[in-house]
Parts: sequence; C-alpha cells; structure tokens
Amino acid sequence: MEKLLMTPGPTNVPERVLNKMKENMIHHRTSEYSKIFRELNERLKFVFQTNSNVLTFPSAGTGALEASIINCFNTGDKVLAISIGDFGDRFIKIAKIYGLNVDEIRIPWGKAVSLGEIQDKLKEDHKGVIITHNETSTGAVNPIKEIGEFLKNKNLIYIVDAVSSLGAIDIQMDNWNIDVLATASQKALMCPPGLAFIGLSPKAIDYCKASKMPKFYFDFLEGIKYMEKSEPQNPYTPAVSLISAANEAITMIEEEGLQNVFLRHKVLAEKFRGEIKGMGLKLFTDERVLSNAITAISLDNGNGDEIKSRLEKEYNIVVAGGQGATKGKMIRVGHMGYVDDYMIDRTLDAIRKVI
Amino acid sequence: MEKLLMTPGPTNVPERVLNKMKENMIHHRTSEYSKIFRELNERLKFVFQTNSNVLTFPSAGTGALEASIINCFNTGDKVLAISIGDFGDRFIKIAKIYGLNVDEIRIPWGKAVSLGEIQDKLKEDHKGVIITHNETSTGAVNPIKEIGEFLKNKNLIYIVDAVSSLGAIDIQMDNWNIDVLATASQKALMCPPGLAFIGLSPKAIDYCKASKMPKFYFDFLEGIKYMEKSEPQNPYTPAVSLISAANEAITMIEEEGLQNVFLRHKVLAEKFRGEIKGMGLKLFTDERVLSNAITAISLDNGNGDEIKSRLEKEYNIVVAGGQGATKGKMIRVGHMGYVDDYMIDRTLDAIRKVI
Repeated sequence: MEKLLMTPGPTNVPERVLNKMKENMIHHRTSEYSKIFRELNERLKFVFQTNSNVLTFPSAGTGALEASIINCFNTGDKVLAISIGDFGDRFIKIAKIYGLNVDEIRIPWGKAVSLGEIQDKLKEDHKGVIITHNETSTGAVNPIKEIGEFLKNKNLIYIVDAVSSLGAIDIQMDNWNIDVLATASQKALMCPPGLAFIGLSPKAIDYCKASKMPKFYFDFLEGIKYMEKSEPQNPYTPAVSLISAANEAITMIEEEGLQNVFLRHKVLAEKFRGEIKGMGLKLFTDERVLSNAITAISLDNGNGDEIKSRLEKEYNIVVAGGQGATKGKMIRVGHMGYVDDYMIDRTLDAIRKVI
Repeated sequence: MEKLLMTPGPTNVPERVLNKMKENMIHHRTSEYSKIFRELNERLKFVFQTNSNVLTFPSAGTGALEASIINCFNTGDKVLAISIGDFGDRFIKIAKIYGLNVDEIRIPWGKAVSLGEIQDKLKEDHKGVIITHNETSTGAVNPIKEIGEFLKNKNLIYIVDAVSSLGAIDIQMDNWNIDVLATASQKALMCPPGLAFIGLSPKAIDYCKASKMPKFYFDFLEGIKYMEKSEPQNPYTPAVSLISAANEAITMIEEEGLQNVFLRHKVLAEKFRGEIKGMGLKLFTDERVLSNAITAISLDNGNGDEIKSRLEKEYNIVVAGGQGATKGKMIRVGHMGYVDDYMIDRTLDAIRKVI
C-alpha cells in the first residue's frame, strides 16, 4: 500500500506537482523565471482572494509569522493576540520575544474565541490583532470573518495565521479586511514544504514603512520592491523548484474551482467525523467550531501514540499525535489538500481495525 | 541544445539529484525522515571538514548570514569585517542593521585582503571576524586558511561566508579554526536553491548562549537541540524534498572524493581562464587570488549585458553580468558544482563566437 500522509502537513503531493520538482534548474535573474514567479503571484492572489501582492520566501510557516511581527511593528507596540492552542501560543511567544506588549486572550483547547471576547478586550491603543485561523493542535477554527468585519476601519492591522487552512477553508482576505495573511506550501496548497507565502494589504505596507525593527532576509518592503519590477523577482535566491511546483499546484486548484475545493474539504471532513463518531470515538473539539482541514480525536485512555504508530507500521498511514498536554491522548488526522474519498475511506478502515 | 547554467548559482543539478526531488513526500516527525536528516548532517560534516553539527534551514544563503549575526552577537558588539565586493558589503550591512559596531576593511574590487591588513586592524575587543571566502561579484578569494591560523586561540569567533565556494574550493572548518561556516544548496553543492547550511563550532555555540538578540525561526540553539535528539529533527517544518536532494548530491561528492572534486574545479577553472585570455579577453581579478568557482571577465567597452544576453538567446547558456559599478562591464561565468570539460568547452566556444 502506498504511503498516505493524513497529517496536518506535509500532505500528499500530486504527481503533476512532483514532476515540476524535477525539472531542470533555471536561473532566478532571467525572464523565464520572472514569468513563472509572476504567474505564481497571480495564482496566490486568487487563492488568497485578494488584489494585493503575495510575497514568497524560502522558509517554514513559522518564519512567516516571525516576519509579520518584525515587519509590521515596533518594540513596545501593543497588540491583542488570541491563542486557542499550540500555534496560537507560538505566535504570542514570537511577539513577546520582539518586545511587543501583548494583551492575550487564551481559550481552553478545543474551543474557539468568540467575537464578543474580542470586542471586550480590544483597546484603542492596540496596533494589531493577531489570530490563528485553523488551530492545528486542536482542530478548532476561529471566526476570522466576523472578527474582520468588526475590525473594519479600526486603527490597527489584522494578522491571520492561515498556515493550515488556506486552500482548505474559505478565507477572503480583502472582503474580510485581513491585512497580513500568512501560509505555507506543504498543507492545503498540496506542495512540498519549504515556502512561506504572505499576503500584505496596502494598510499592512504602511505599517511596514513605519516599522523600525531590524530585519533583512524577511524584509517585506524589499520583497514588494522586487515584485513590482517590470520582470518580478525576489531580493535573494528563491527556491525555484518549489515555486514552479506551487504554481502547478494552484493551477490544479484553479481547474477544480476554489469553491469546489472548499466544498470537497467540507464533504470529506463531515464524512470522516461522522464515521469516527460512529465508531464510538470522541472528537476533541467543540462541535460548533470544527475544522474541515483536520480532525482531532480524543483518546483519553492515553493510547494515542500507540494507535498512531500502528497506523503507520501496519497500514502505511501517517497521522499526527497530540501536542503539549494532549500528548498520547489524541490523534490528529489531516484531511487537507490533495485528499479524496478513497484516502478518507482507507484511513477510516485502518482506524476501525486498529482501535 | 540543453540549457547550461554557467552562473554563480543556481547551478546545473544532476539527474540523480533531480530524481530525489520528485519522490513522494514523507513526514518530518518520523523515523524515516530522521534517518535522512542524520545522513545529511554526517555528509555535511564531511564537506565542511568538521566534527561539529551543521544546521539546515529552509532559506536563501542571505538568511544564513543574517542568522549568524543575530545568534552569535549582542547589539554594540565590536567586530572586524572584510569586504572585497558586493557580498562582503551585504554582510557588513546586515551586521550594522543589527547594531554591531563594525570596523571595516574595504578592499578594491578584484583584489583580496592580505593577512597583514587583518593583523594591522584586529583589536583586543573585537568579538568576531567576518569575511567572505569566494567573492561572487569579483571572482577573488580571500586567504581564509592563513587568517584562521592567525586567529587561533584569540578571544573571538571567526565567521566565514562560503556560500559560493563550499564544495568547489578546499575549506577545512576545524583545521582552520572557523567557528561559523555558512553556505547554501544551489552552488557548488549541486542542489536546487532553498536550503542554507551553517556549521557551528563549540566556541560558536558558547557565543550563541551569550547572545540576547531576539530570534526565533533562525535560532541556532533550538536547531542544535533538535539535532541532538536520538532521532534528529528540525524545530520547524524542513524542506523535505530539498534535504533528500542535498543528501544525494553530497553522496555524489563522496563518491568522486572531496579532493578530486576540488582538483576538477581547479583544472577546469585554469583551462577556462587560459582560453579566455587566449581570446584576448581580460580577467577582472588579481591573478594571485583567482577563484576556481567563478571567473569574472572584464568588458571595459560596456557590452557585457549584450554578450550575456546573446549567450542565453543564441547558445542557451546562462551566465551572470556585473553587479554595482561593474554592471555592463563584466560577465561572470560560474564553473562550480556539476560541471565538466564538455560544459566548459561549450561555454568557451559560445563566448568565442559571440565576441
């Protein structure tokens, strides 16, 4: 049986995309490269649902989160940050490392924040709101649309970590007033890992211009400058193969249709959750905020790591375990990106046999 | 005619390495990945000629230079930095952005620094010496061995940017007392771009422990911690495909033999330079410090960009032009990594016809 990556990333990469990875190298200061890079930017704008440029860096998603902080703020700036799990905690940790004055909303794992909690905590002097969209550690989704509508025209920027959701769950960057939208290649975008993508609104660019924090490699304004050349480029050597692969992967999303992609994720997620509950297993996550990208299954008797290990050894299916306090007490099954009915069925069948 | 990348990177990637790029994705928190990552670390130690671990990040080489500064120093630290061209200037710029107190030695383009100049300028309170090995903008090579021998047992760290030389020209990290040795995947190491590699001596790690500059994604100590796990990993999602490709590329270097690889570069570089001079063309670089990785050819009449463009359009050979003040007045031909007699001959033949 072929290996199946049912993890929250890296996810399965389609053959078409893998084939792009082995194409002969091209040089990044040529028209040939600029053409591909321009195409990728246009396709990223399509999946980000924005008219703004989307920057691309060789980096993990974590680098994109850090880059958002160092490019948009100054030491001492006050921000409101919401954590509903491990990745929310990480974003807060990064903000604090850089001396931001962080007001935190921490929600118990498995739940999402409510708009009301944000309305309560938001202050006039907050220069940013920082939130995780899809919390990979818990399978809960924050209401980023409602929050974005509330934040419209407020004197701050709205930063969304969409690393594990962009391309799986609807995110309308422009319509929802998102100023910085960060994701990575290896999740719902069906690519190998190694690229971070960051959409920047005109307001975010103004914040970048006011930021005095030291930066170099991740300098957004340099990235924009190179992207706005008549032949768009990157300030430093880009990961050419991955850029070509990402361009192909998003072409596949275009071909399927963005709304169809979201619908496929929804249908498969609902089927997966239904069957899991049918087996008598418990979902970890509040039913009202379930993610269509990942399902967290509670295993309170602590045999999560054993089940994870057996799924890999006996069925060649890789899933993720619990993080932090949920270690051993959870398995997390990713169903994002290049995923179909067969993969869901094979995974359900293996889980049924193992438990 | 197949495209030939005779640039200072990205360089031609062997078929064996490209084939690794299209392998099915594996997850980075599995034994399967740890095995490859451990192998890569051992192979990197072999090409770095060190017993220390070599960190790997999804990043351009520039990220590795910045990471060296933010991990090893504190704001206000005094360092001695040598620039002999564009990349030396970049390293100094990064150091200054982070508030280092930089004493500079600037050498006219085309020449290298001498040990004497460093002996003259080095002061007791310098906490680091920062130097480019192979200056890609000029084709000159600094005497990093002699400098390293002089710096032995001094109370500072020795940081070498070997982005465009490691794997082409002998660099003995441990024997030459280099504390931080930084390079990237897409040059002499024959891989696609997207990975930065950083060798860290025990002394460098002590400096990292004393550094209080904010950092997160590029945190060296986190990288070391994850690398020292019984199953080595990376703190954040690694570029799995590129890691597998790099592992294969350095296997090819092992098979050829490191000294044979350096000898091949030397023989091909000498042949290339000899023929170029035979055509009546002038080398830009001081004859005593010529690089075996790249040759910079002076074109004082300013037709460099035209020649570069014709080589690409008429002969499908990509070379680099001049940077900064040499723009239009130079072509730079890379002969590093996966390069052989045929490629050198084809390039020489094309240059002969174009000029």
